[in-house]
Amino acid sequence: MKYPKTPAIFVKGKDFRLADVDPDANGPFADKYVDKDAAGPRVAALRQRLAELQEKLYAEHRRSLLLVFQAMDTGGKDGAIGNLLAGVNPAGVQVAAFKAPTPKELAHDFLWRIHAQTPEQGHIGVFNRSHYEDVLVTRVHGLVDKKKAHQRFEAINNFEQLLVRNGTVILKFFLHISKKEQAERLQARLDDPDKRWKFEPGDLKERARWGDYQDVYEDALRHCSSPEAPWFAVPANHKWSRDLAIAEIVVATLEEMHPEPPAADFDVKAQVIK
Amino acid sequence: MKYPKTPAIFVKGKDFRLADVDPDANGPFADKYVDKDAAGPRVAALRQRLAELQEKLYAEHRRSLLLVFQAMDTGGKDGAIGNLLAGVNPAGVQVAAFKAPTPKELAHDFLWRIHAQTPEQGHIGVFNRSHYEDVLVTRVHGLVDKKKAHQRFEAINNFEQLLVRNGTVILKFFLHISKKEQAERLQARLDDPDKRWKFEPGDLKERARWGDYQDVYEDALRHCSSPEAPWFAVPANHKWSRDLAIAEIVVATLEEMHPEPPAADFDVKAQVIK
Repeated sequence: MKYPKTPAIFVKGKDFRLADVDPDANGPFADKYVDKDAAGPRVAALRQRLAELQEKLYAEHRRSLLLVFQAMDTGGKDGAIGNLLAGVNPAGVQVAAFKAPTPKELAHDFLWRIHAQTPEQGHIGVFNRSHYEDVLVTRVHGLVDKKKAHQRFEAINNFEQLLVRNGTVILKFFLHISKKEQAERLQARLDDPDKRWKFEPGDLKERARWGDYQDVYEDALRHCSSPEAPWFAVPANHKWSRDLAIAEIVVATLEEMHPEPPAADFDVKAQVIK
Repeated sequence: MKYPKTPAIFVKGKDFRLADVDPDANGPFADKYVDKDAAGPRVAALRQRLAELQEKLYAEHRRSLLLVFQAMDTGGKDGAIGNLLAGVNPAGVQVAAFKAPTPKELAHDFLWRIHAQTPEQGHIGVFNRSHYEDVLVTRVHGLVDKKKAHQRFEAINNFEQLLVRNGTVILKFFLHISKKEQAERLQARLDDPDKRWKFEPGDLKERARWGDYQDVYEDALRHCSSPEAPWFAVPANHKWSRDLAIAEIVVATLEEMHPEPPAADFDVKAQVIK
């Protein structure tokens, strides 16, 4: 699969360095649209095309698409998901948001609750946070050491391979913002009474571990990205280029999948409607 | 709750007659928009407002909205759901499509699989078919007799009351098309290779029982509609007026719910972002 040119970086193996990804990057894109004004119509066109392709995927009912979103707090997961999928028939989309696990979920292996939410044939599944939390937040907080984390990378790769072999195409997006951008977004949440519900004082404790998070993200992306289940590091300080990059990659992937409605398994001419 | 004026009929009790509902009706609506051309911008505005209200419902995280859709084959459930919810963030929407029950589902009471799919707080849940199938198709096919069906009406009313008391607002839409309109839509599915996957020869057997279906629908609507969990009989031969009527009722209901993000439960001024 050859992905269209966007500011998003396709993570290839162990040499990937998160520090090399500029959260402020907003180009280059393929073709002509390179600024914020030109991006709007292009995203609208991609969204329209996504709705068409999703309907064909649904009709085909044979394969599925799984989109995984990870980011630091305020990284833009909710916005990116909403902007990508607004316009798609929600009957063909399953969004799963993974929060702190419940006691029942903790009483199973870390992939148990994830597996239950994988998309069924014909659907687009979206993970807002994911199984990767179990090699990120848990690792920063010392619940999982390096050895255990690397065992989990292996488990994750095996799990994703199982899904891929069963007809699920996987794309994973790490929305990469700068620490300074996060400060502005957190402040905006505090200042705006309509956004304040998104703020939690605990977010500041996680923010204080910024460097640790960058390290564990880098390690996870290095070990769990492959052509079959790629990670993209998406510069995300600029929402418009973030959304455009994701839309380009998702639509190109669905075009490559080329879903087609099945042929009739009955004699069309013999059907008489009285 | 006073609903806006649309061609949809709010079913009130035992005197309701489905035969009195004209599937071709496309008015009157409140206000000025009365024709197809004027409906488009109005639906777009309602959809925009729905997206805003859904975000507030999500932020509030206290109540939920459940939309139930039932119709004869080709009645327009998929189209109505897609046209209503395109534009709403799919992360706040759960669509459940109920098909013929699996052996595991049949090994439980008829509300078991339904209960598992009720929307969580902050979400809009959509049922494409529902627990009502168990007093409709089962009744037409003689799996459930009148006495059993009326026991199930009671069970359904009790179940819906449980949801309502837990903060779920319920709206139920029966999309009412004419037999002639169904013939045209079935023929269109047969004729168009892109739509043919939606056609099943078995649909014609159900069509032959048209009158029986109208009778059991009428009985279900009569017995399971209340101000707390109303049924609306929606004239659905014209897609534009069907979609407008549903959008008007859903948006008016959410306006009446008046969802509000919760106030901060921490000291806003004490938060310092470093």
